[in-house]
Amino acid sequence: MNFGSDNTSGVAPRIMEGLMAANAGHARSYGADDLTKAVEARIREVFEAPEARVFLVTSGTAANALSCALLTNPWEAIFCHRNAHIEEDECGAPEFFSDGAKLVLVEGEDAKMTPETLAQKIGHTGAAIHNIQRGMVSITNSTEFGTVYTAQEVRALCDVAKAHDLPVHMDGARFANALVRLDVSPAEMTWKAGVDVLSFGGTKNGCMGVEAVVIFDPARAQEFELRRKRAGQLMSKHRYLAAQMLAYLEEGYWLELARHANAMADKLSQGLAALPSVRLLHPVQSNGVFVALPRHLHCKLMAEGAYYYLWPFDQDLETGDPEELISARLVCSWSTTAQEVGAFLDHLGGQSASQAAFSEA
Amino acid sequence: MNFGSDNTSGVAPRIMEGLMAANAGHARSYGADDLTKAVEARIREVFEAPEARVFLVTSGTAANALSCALLTNPWEAIFCHRNAHIEEDECGAPEFFSDGAKLVLVEGEDAKMTPETLAQKIGHTGAAIHNIQRGMVSITNSTEFGTVYTAQEVRALCDVAKAHDLPVHMDGARFANALVRLDVSPAEMTWKAGVDVLSFGGTKNGCMGVEAVVIFDPARAQEFELRRKRAGQLMSKHRYLAAQMLAYLEEGYWLELARHANAMADKLSQGLAALPSVRLLHPVQSNGVFVALPRHLHCKLMAEGAYYYLWPFDQDLETGDPEELISARLVCSWSTTAQEVGAFLDHLGGQSASQAAFSEA
Amino acid sequence: MNFGSDNTSGVAPRIMEGLMAANAGHARSYGADDLTKAVEARIREVFEAPEARVFLVTSGTAANALSCALLTNPWEAIFCHRNAHIEEDECGAPEFFSDGAKLVLVEGEDAKMTPETLAQKIGHTGAAIHNIQRGMVSITNSTEFGTVYTAQEVRALCDVAKAHDLPVHMDGARFANALVRLDVSPAEMTWKAGVDVLSFGGTKNGCMGVEAVVIFDPARAQEFELRRKRAGQLMSKHRYLAAQMLAYLEEGYWLELARHANAMADKLSQGLAALPSVRLLHPVQSNGVFVALPRHLHCKLMAEGAYYYLWPFDQDLETGDPEELISARLVCSWSTTAQEVGAFLDHLGGQSASQAAFSEA
Amino acid sequence: MNFGSDNTSGVAPRIMEGLMAANAGHARSYGADDLTKAVEARIREVFEAPEARVFLVTSGTAANALSCALLTNPWEAIFCHRNAHIEEDECGAPEFFSDGAKLVLVEGEDAKMTPETLAQKIGHTGAAIHNIQRGMVSITNSTEFGTVYTAQEVRALCDVAKAHDLPVHMDGARFANALVRLDVSPAEMTWKAGVDVLSFGGTKNGCMGVEAVVIFDPARAQEFELRRKRAGQLMSKHRYLAAQMLAYLEEGYWLELARHANAMADKLSQGLAALPSVRLLHPVQSNGVFVALPRHLHCKLMAEGAYYYLWPFDQDLETGDPEELISARLVCSWSTTAQEVGAFLDHLGGQSASQAAFSEA
Repeated sequence: MNFGSDNTSGVAPRIMEGLMAANAGHARSYGADDLTKAVEARIREVFEAPEARVFLVTSGTAANALSCALLTNPWEAIFCHRNAHIEEDECGAPEFFSDGAKLVLVEGEDAKMTPETLAQKIGHTGAAIHNIQRGMVSITNSTEFGTVYTAQEVRALCDVAKAHDLPVHMDGARFANALVRLDVSPAEMTWKAGVDVLSFGGTKNGCMGVEAVVIFDPARAQEFELRRKRAGQLMSKHRYLAAQMLAYLEEGYWLELARHANAMADKLSQGLAALPSVRLLHPVQSNGVFVALPRHLHCKLMAEGAYYYLWPFDQDLETGDPEELISARLVCSWSTTAQEVGAFLDHLGGQSASQAAFSEA
Repeated sequence: MNFGSDNTSGVAPRIMEGLMAANAGHARSYGADDLTKAVEARIREVFEAPEARVFLVTSGTAANALSCALLTNPWEAIFCHRNAHIEEDECGAPEFFSDGAKLVLVEGEDAKMTPETLAQKIGHTGAAIHNIQRGMVSITNSTEFGTVYTAQEVRALCDVAKAHDLPVHMDGARFANALVRLDVSPAEMTWKAGVDVLSFGGTKNGCMGVEAVVIFDPARAQEFELRRKRAGQLMSKHRYLAAQMLAYLEEGYWLELARHANAMADKLSQGLAALPSVRLLHPVQSNGVFVALPRHLHCKLMAEGAYYYLWPFDQDLETGDPEELISARLVCSWSTTAQEVGAFLDHLGGQSASQAAFSEA
Repeated sequence: MNFGSDNTSGVAPRIMEGLMAANAGHARSYGADDLTKAVEARIREVFEAPEARVFLVTSGTAANALSCALLTNPWEAIFCHRNAHIEEDECGAPEFFSDGAKLVLVEGEDAKMTPETLAQKIGHTGAAIHNIQRGMVSITNSTEFGTVYTAQEVRALCDVAKAHDLPVHMDGARFANALVRLDVSPAEMTWKAGVDVLSFGGTKNGCMGVEAVVIFDPARAQEFELRRKRAGQLMSKHRYLAAQMLAYLEEGYWLELARHANAMADKLSQGLAALPSVRLLHPVQSNGVFVALPRHLHCKLMAEGAYYYLWPFDQDLETGDPEELISARLVCSWSTTAQEVGAFLDHLGGQSASQAAFSEA
Repeated sequence: MNFGSDNTSGVAPRIMEGLMAANAGHARSYGADDLTKAVEARIREVFEAPEARVFLVTSGTAANALSCALLTNPWEAIFCHRNAHIEEDECGAPEFFSDGAKLVLVEGEDAKMTPETLAQKIGHTGAAIHNIQRGMVSITNSTEFGTVYTAQEVRALCDVAKAHDLPVHMDGARFANALVRLDVSPAEMTWKAGVDVLSFGGTKNGCMGVEAVVIFDPARAQEFELRRKRAGQLMSKHRYLAAQMLAYLEEGYWLELARHANAMADKLSQGLAALPSVRLLHPVQSNGVFVALPRHLHCKLMAEGAYYYLWPFDQDLETGDPEELISARLVCSWSTTAQEVGAFLDHLGGQSASQAAFSEA
């Protein structure tokens, strides 16, 4: 019953096999190997973007922060949602990599900016030389609250950005989870909607530790390559990043893994929705479930061995009313099993909850 | 016949097995897993440093640049050899991570600083508020030219640093190769000699991609932890960094791998020394062999499928006298075979060279 | 009728005399001159702080940004009001000088933080290694909306900061205007209340271009000195900064200048308060008056030659209802005359307004 | 007998008058005033560059560091002479403002790069993604050793830079001193020779504290303006920077001041050349004289009240042979008098030296 994060899961079997297969003999280092070339070719196919350049890095924070540094000047604003990962969970990496650009926070329900809230913030930024200037927009999809922007919604945000000549980054640490929820192509979700640079996540969806930065305008690639090296993110034995990503993308494995994670989150949310004492906090659209539950149920689950994070972290658990609602985040992954979900619901609400979740199964 | 770099080799078998074994079930992320705890305990044992703190990162550049940022202020000097990796091959990562500290270059034969050349540079730095101030010293061991500082030499440099109250970093990307050449302990090579922070390399000696930053003074650890996160170097599925490092350290595997690499370099250099047309450029003390050879031999080797780097990179190969000497770097690794070395020598000098190399075998 | 800013005024007469008097003969450069020594001594007296260190710089932005860089690490939060000058009008200078610290914005009426809003933001910051950590607090006094924190209010904010071991900076670009409004000493307003570093403004209150950074804990001084030099803020002909500041502080001239500016703002606000179509937006407690007035009155004033800024800048003036309220900032200075104020009020509201302003005179 | 630096001199009379004249009434702040507009127009005339953009800052360090930041990326090299001011006397300001660009040091006699030494360093830089890339060239004229590049020499260096597509900055803190030594125009010394951005010094040659950054390609101006603001170098009461610069440029006052300073240095060097125990270290081509003299003479001069710097600073004066040679820097300025020079020479060498200096007078 580990719902702590998708990164508490291991490496998916076919990806581990890919790593082992890559281990034969010598290979050129720093990305000059054949597997790395194959990754770029494969991602160009997946995104229908024959000009795109692809750079592998080892963490989502690095992918995002390097992308932001590429797209903005230090005296400019990075417009993002108040609850974006780049704002809340990267210890200031975007500021570090960009030499001090400012994250300007946009409001919106369910961790989603709207064209109106985005346009308003852009409109109030950069009036004079004394102010931070307008820089770029960063969209997280799926969001930190497990919701998903449709391709139309992405396009609407990009349209606002483009009206101000601002480039757009997408933080796709959970891109696959968003994509499989919608009936659109990777291209429609990104460059066709106006996205310039994508952090394409692998780690949270079954890889060991690899993210691809996909740069749709190849003119920006040379600068990115230098920034990656300078940031200590150019891996020497690069074939092992490439091998993960290749196995991940082979025959739709990445989509299969994400579909499973989302399906488990759906089961979980269906079970939770059947419990009167529990309240879902956001629509469940990817693999994350945000829920308010009474303190006594939380304590019971912990005692039974469940593992998940309170969200936000800093809730006071020491004291208080057993009926008081506590908010928590439950994340499913490629390795979450129906048994785990069932057991969790059983502990929480008895058979009614798990029946609600699995009745149609 | 691939002598390009130790990072063109793959992952050593027991390390790959460690990765596979680590792949069962869930594990806490971001270093809260059991394997990571075990790594810290193991490294404390290896270095006889029960207070040391250990942080894993994904590249040597990150290990070095984060260490430098930890030990110096932006307005200070990082004293290092003119040919240090941090000066020559990290695209300015130390400057980036430290917010602009200045590398002040120290002279010395065979890529080794001497107490005199170091003291002289320190002495001429920081006279007034207008100047860069004295910050720290960084020692590369083994060096970029394949030579090794003895523990006494390390101590002599540290003594100079300490006389000016400067902390000392050791870039140990090839620490194991240096250590096995000398009859000293890891502790004698580092903190007992005065080293404050060590970049302890794994990747070049058989790991997939992991370096440990060993901080002997635990008071510095909290800052390092935040710097690592902010730099995108805190891996989420951290167990896979830990698993590599654990397997690497288990039962002296790391020393065994380094001994093999050094032994192959010894064979290679013995063979080369027997050839009148070839000249060794530096003493061969670890796993790198630097050699000057006539252009026509270089061309022949390339034609036979040998792979190695000219050193420096920017030599003009297009034209010139076939007898002109060209300088090259040949690196052996854990996976270099005696057959490869023998074949290379055969191509280069005929049987006499390979016999010189292997006569005592 | 120039109410654009206190920095559209010139240099007050005794300060210009001080500059001329300082122009005789040679003087040591970079602050080794006698006038600079005298400034430090004088400020120590004024602040009853015999250990304080004083550093002169050329702009308020430099004073603030260097102070923030001194008191915070790059991975930490600078807590300040949403409308602080460091957030709104320095083009990201605090981020630049601090290598990317994050300004975390605190709410509060009239540009003033409260202990509650400050404590709340601090409380929600820095829960884990993934987050920006708690760094420092910056208080602007007088505020960007012309209001003033009392010494008790400053102390209450400092108490919140100290409860979390956070240092406190005060942006005193208009420190004199705040001080003369209250019946307290400079010491009570600063270090006795818990302020660690003060940007003590000179320029806006009659100097040509000089601000003093007053560091109450001398242990921080050496780092500041290096940061100042590195930032290009150590003036070579330093005596001319010192001469301004000495004349400014001599025989309470600085207080006299500020009292005049505040008195003019009082007159102006009294006149405005008598006009039914006009609304004061914030209490008038220093030398700034914020007012909402109908568009047609604004246009009339502009036509008559009045000069002031709309606040915020980005209001749409091109179109709209003549009765629609527009918000503006009117700033008085040491050189504002009663005639200017009277003429402005006459243009705005006829004799009734200027009579209301000057009836008691 | 103050030869400490040209910045120990005061403000030249006509510049002080300009400041006083500028003090009447209100003026728009932040450079929107009429005097600032007049400065840009005047400098365009002086440099025959009708498109140039001009930005005033308060220190030479700021002018240089902002210029370097404008012309280089953080992962690039700034090629400059080993003894350039930006390398030796700015406490790392270029690194700070550029977010960590690396100064790559070029050799050459008398603090002058040659086309050959420059080309060699450029040629060895930037071979691969692992290395700092080629960024820009910075030329100091006159140099830190008082020598001068002719316009032809500047052009030859620029030609090397342009062959690699690198922009060129000139540190002209003592531009006037160089210019009046040669029979060329400001345009011939700068943009006609290939200089892209000039730090045009005022402070050392009689201003209070102002330097103009002259950007010959106006496309770069907007970025510079934002960098200047962000660096705390956009002065609010901007008219006082402009007033200095206008008076400085009026009717060739700047050239007159520089000619005087150079003439005094010539006298001084003529007198020194007549002394057998003293040796000139570099050709005297501007207002600085570098000399080696016996320790006992140095001590005698100090005792007589002379003031100048040992160069380098860190010579050991405490002990040693009275005949040992010590090296010193003597700087003349607009305010140096023939009497001072004569008295100095008298103390040093008796009448023979001062006669040698002034015989032709």
